[in-house]
Amino acid sequence: MGEKRDKIPGPKALRVINTMKKHAYDSTFMYSLVISHGHNCIIEDIDGNKYLDFTSNIGACPLGYSHPDIIETLAQYSSNGTYKIAGQDFYCQEHADLAEDISKILPSGFKTFFINSGAEAVENAIKIAYRKKGPLPGISCIGAFHGRTLGALSFTASRPVHKYNFPEFPSKRIKFCTRDDDPEIDAIEDLLKENKIAFIMTEIIQGEGGYNVASKKFVSNLRKFATRYGVPLILDEVQSGIGHTGKWWAFEHYNIRPDIMTSAKALQIGATAFDKKYEPATRSALSSTWGGGNRIDMAVGSKVIQVIKRDKLLENATKMGNMLRKGLSEMIGKKGIVDVRGLGLMIGVEFDTAHHRDKKLSDLFKHGLLTLGAGQKSMRIIPPLIITKEQIHQGLDIMHQVLMRN
Amino acid sequence: MGEKRDKIPGPKALRVINTMKKHAYDSTFMYSLVISHGHNCIIEDIDGNKYLDFTSNIGACPLGYSHPDIIETLAQYSSNGTYKIAGQDFYCQEHADLAEDISKILPSGFKTFFINSGAEAVENAIKIAYRKKGPLPGISCIGAFHGRTLGALSFTASRPVHKYNFPEFPSKRIKFCTRDDDPEIDAIEDLLKENKIAFIMTEIIQGEGGYNVASKKFVSNLRKFATRYGVPLILDEVQSGIGHTGKWWAFEHYNIRPDIMTSAKALQIGATAFDKKYEPATRSALSSTWGGGNRIDMAVGSKVIQVIKRDKLLENATKMGNMLRKGLSEMIGKKGIVDVRGLGLMIGVEFDTAHHRDKKLSDLFKHGLLTLGAGQKSMRIIPPLIITKEQIHQGLDIMHQVLMRN
Repeated sequence: MGEKRDKIPGPKALRVINTMKKHAYDSTFMYSLVISHGHNCIIEDIDGNKYLDFTSNIGACPLGYSHPDIIETLAQYSSNGTYKIAGQDFYCQEHADLAEDISKILPSGFKTFFINSGAEAVENAIKIAYRKKGPLPGISCIGAFHGRTLGALSFTASRPVHKYNFPEFPSKRIKFCTRDDDPEIDAIEDLLKENKIAFIMTEIIQGEGGYNVASKKFVSNLRKFATRYGVPLILDEVQSGIGHTGKWWAFEHYNIRPDIMTSAKALQIGATAFDKKYEPATRSALSSTWGGGNRIDMAVGSKVIQVIKRDKLLENATKMGNMLRKGLSEMIGKKGIVDVRGLGLMIGVEFDTAHHRDKKLSDLFKHGLLTLGAGQKSMRIIPPLIITKEQIHQGLDIMHQVLMRN
Repeated sequence: MGEKRDKIPGPKALRVINTMKKHAYDSTFMYSLVISHGHNCIIEDIDGNKYLDFTSNIGACPLGYSHPDIIETLAQYSSNGTYKIAGQDFYCQEHADLAEDISKILPSGFKTFFINSGAEAVENAIKIAYRKKGPLPGISCIGAFHGRTLGALSFTASRPVHKYNFPEFPSKRIKFCTRDDDPEIDAIEDLLKENKIAFIMTEIIQGEGGYNVASKKFVSNLRKFATRYGVPLILDEVQSGIGHTGKWWAFEHYNIRPDIMTSAKALQIGATAFDKKYEPATRSALSSTWGGGNRIDMAVGSKVIQVIKRDKLLENATKMGNMLRKGLSEMIGKKGIVDVRGLGLMIGVEFDTAHHRDKKLSDLFKHGLLTLGAGQKSMRIIPPLIITKEQIHQGLDIMHQVLMRN
């Protein structure tokens, strides 16, 4: 890592990519990276090229790769011939275990429903709200990303091309305020006063939207007015939950609690958790063949929660995140870098133009540092929670080398 | 198996179920079955009780349990620390392999997009149709089940309680005709003549709706008029695909091909496959963190296709299905059994009342034979494709014992 590689994709990667082009639809690939295996925070491609991973697969691999506890769990299932069952028709130990493990990090009085993806977790969150309030408009934020199924997509507003020509459910959009002095910060009250609303849904850190961090007053406003007008507040923690911000859930930085919330990615499985007061609304509303039935994913999910606790990885995320943000902040104002922001190990670096951002991401990739894009012109940095000081410095060195030259 | 067991749930199962009640929302469980492991077509619960499985976990375990080829595949991944990646950002060999393996059993000119569930596969099918035609009404069938995300659910019409208080996208419903002489069999033409339509979507065998088999003329009508009016025909093969009807896809019994189709369950992963003419419609429309990134599920999916071919399991499904249907048909007209129908190993047994059906399913469960409900008053039988003559007879014996007494 660190030196520029000119022969990527290698010959094996090229074969895989060519087969993909022939037989699969792929609309969002950005790099020619064909992952083979990985260790710690290093991903290795099929031709043997190594990458320092600052993406954790969009937060979905919080313990990095080949973590001994995860490998041990996988090995336990390598001879279990019922590793994936119909999880809403039949029970399994792993389902109960994960429900219990996550209950310890949820707001009190919450229970959970497990499903296949973050998008499906959002679908179930809004279904519970609709069941309670009826098919009224939902409020979501400009720049929000809640998933690509058509229900979740109705409340997604990050890129118009995501939803061109699709039908949408009724929605009202508010500005996602990142500053307490934003003049639109009280807009939510007028909306709730003038309309019947099914729910308010937002991220605390907009993920796909560019790693924008909500202002304190914005979040406390949403909570206050949701309660005042009797509208469920849904917090989407699919990308931010399970530790990447330095707390289990991003909303813990704001001293509030949601009525309904979602998790996925780092949890290894989609989850919708909500207050037991909504239990009657679940009747025949929630089910899925594989939801709660993927025993490997649920066992790994439990292990993720346990290891984060045991190894104090929330503290590590805070410490390493601060170190990384500090290093990156020194580049603000230089070579087209206009902003660095984030919470814990979820860090956005904003460039002057989308073209510049894309060019730099591609250069970092060629130099062996893996990052992703977010929003119109930001870089998304979300390393595994186990990342070390040495790896943060190594990443910063590559960033300096690539971002600070013309 | 065969003898009635009075001590179900056992003590270990009870503990799991109690933990579930405390921490998880469960709205659709019917039996107190806590699955531990399985071999061949036998499922064993956590207390050591064995069940002959006539469900294959709603078709999702076509090779039964602990199939040597599947165990071999699982073992290969037990030490791979990147077994689940962000599959629309990064490539892996398994994604390309499964795309190539499924291409051999798809209509010519089709390519595939992989996703997390059957519901998400349906969401992507209708998204492709909308992208092409605009947000117009879609046509679906009364009794249809296409999934529980809000897009798919708009075209689901099996039980009103599934969608109480939810918003829906515009739709037109037609009768799912199971007889060529049904007077409503030509209704589709009037609908297409009088309305601008985004797509026609149907199952060939209604799954959740009761294992109803479409009539030949109904299907050929849909194909003919879809073509004539330039409307994409979406066939939902989530439950019927990958061999359970004795062919790879249920539509092969009808000598037609869809424009867009879905698969999931037996494939181990959701998939939307469609003609390359729709490729421009995929731009930025399809993505997902885990879609195409679950390497274990994709490797198992490839293995499922390969083993079905190698071991001639389509032929077995046809032969065993005929034998089972013949045995069950002898019970028609007796003890409240009013119909037996199906294709291959997808068999519905209709009872006189829902109450009677539920009672008999529960009795079969207590006698060690696992089946599920479907529709208002039908029993759903969908054994693994590897089932043997002896197991069919064993199942029939238990059925006789339980269904033919008062």
